[in-house]
Amino acid sequence: MKIVLIGSGNVATHLGKAFQNCGHEIVQVYSRLDTNAKGLGKVLKCEHTNDINKINKKADVYFIALKDDVIEGFVNKIKFPGKVIIHTSASLPMNILNKSSKDFGVFYPLQSFTKDRVIDLKEITIFIESNNIRSKKVLLELAKCISDKVSEITFEQRLTLHVAAVFANNFTNHLYKIAGDILKTSGLSFDVLKPLIKETADRVMITDPALVQTGPAQRKDHKTIAKHLELLKNFHAYHNIYSVFSQSIERQSK
Amino acid sequence: MKIVLIGSGNVATHLGKAFQNCGHEIVQVYSRLDTNAKGLGKVLKCEHTNDINKINKKADVYFIALKDDVIEGFVNKIKFPGKVIIHTSASLPMNILNKSSKDFGVFYPLQSFTKDRVIDLKEITIFIESNNIRSKKVLLELAKCISDKVSEITFEQRLTLHVAAVFANNFTNHLYKIAGDILKTSGLSFDVLKPLIKETADRVMITDPALVQTGPAQRKDHKTIAKHLELLKNFHAYHNIYSVFSQSIERQSK
Repeated sequence: MKIVLIGSGNVATHLGKAFQNCGHEIVQVYSRLDTNAKGLGKVLKCEHTNDINKINKKADVYFIALKDDVIEGFVNKIKFPGKVIIHTSASLPMNILNKSSKDFGVFYPLQSFTKDRVIDLKEITIFIESNNIRSKKVLLELAKCISDKVSEITFEQRLTLHVAAVFANNFTNHLYKIAGDILKTSGLSFDVLKPLIKETADRVMITDPALVQTGPAQRKDHKTIAKHLELLKNFHAYHNIYSVFSQSIERQSK
Repeated sequence: MKIVLIGSGNVATHLGKAFQNCGHEIVQVYSRLDTNAKGLGKVLKCEHTNDINKINKKADVYFIALKDDVIEGFVNKIKFPGKVIIHTSASLPMNILNKSSKDFGVFYPLQSFTKDRVIDLKEITIFIESNNIRSKKVLLELAKCISDKVSEITFEQRLTLHVAAVFANNFTNHLYKIAGDILKTSGLSFDVLKPLIKETADRVMITDPALVQTGPAQRKDHKTIAKHLELLKNFHAYHNIYSVFSQSIERQSK
């Protein structure tokens, strides 16, 4: 299929490459900023534009990977009659696309894409939502070409997935950051935590996390918790996170 | 060296095997519960006892891997004159051992040990603290035989390490649990999160977590945060954790 990519961020970059790798053609990249449009056009070896009026109208699919807060503004400005329009947002309903075409849907890959990181897309699940048979067929073709795991979900489920992903990815990354900040106060390197972080993630690949919860809160060790809170007294936000977590873990411990 | 292991939990089991693998002799396992003493004695093919008066007095090292709240009670009941006494606690000072012998110290491996999980000890850092040259020599010999990474630290640093480990391991595992609970409400499997969890942990092995923070709070996307909080309204504790984290992340975002 011929695809126009709307957006030039991490999602557009990773998916653009993946679509090319399985034989689809990226005919053009659009980005509001000329440097970004040019940059991704170069990576994907395709045309680029930063002018909404110069978007190629002869593609089959218009694949929107813009930030949530600009997607609706974009689709309200331009119509793609007869084309399939797709967005990749976790939190926006599919119907915001209905002014732009009668065939539309959502392509939501459950992964965190960052610059310069190679991601094995075959392993991730791609969640799709479509408004009719035609858009569903296009979404399935795009999703199945890059992943073995494709699943149809509702908007409500997509929102739930996103919340779960925020806990598992964004908040986990923030915990790593906090741990590093705490170590710095004692002149210790973040590197010493790496085997522990790896083990924590490896373990959950094969074991229910509820069954391997450990630590002071799990064993209701209030003496240790008090020592830790004392040590965190100058880190107001981290002290608060420590308390809230310890309460939540203890409430669930047997 | 000849070692008596005091304790039969995960730390005693993992370290007992490791010491044997590098040529030390576990002469006996002590545990308050006969079944546990017998169980680990069988694993390590050594004598076992659950009678504090029958602890073998002819070893070189008494290696205490008991729960924090029973260590002091144990060492106050029994003396090991002329021997080296070691505990593995993250949160107890070394001096609680001083009634039992004049040579003592702490052996703190920064890792989370759980049953049935094989851990590559070579990769983890072993932190030691000792009260004199003799105990330091023994601690270094034990630590260097099982890991390439050995570091001397103070009690204050050990406490700090433990707090950091609670964030990076215990709290992270709880986030995985929460994510799974949230997915269940929509009939979705925890499995879909695994590639995301793996990527989050893999990424931090080579990148400062502060540089790869993503998500609604990082981009100050208050519309999405509000949707997520609405979705979590029936999970009081998780709603609270979501708020506290989002505030902490947003405060640090540029």
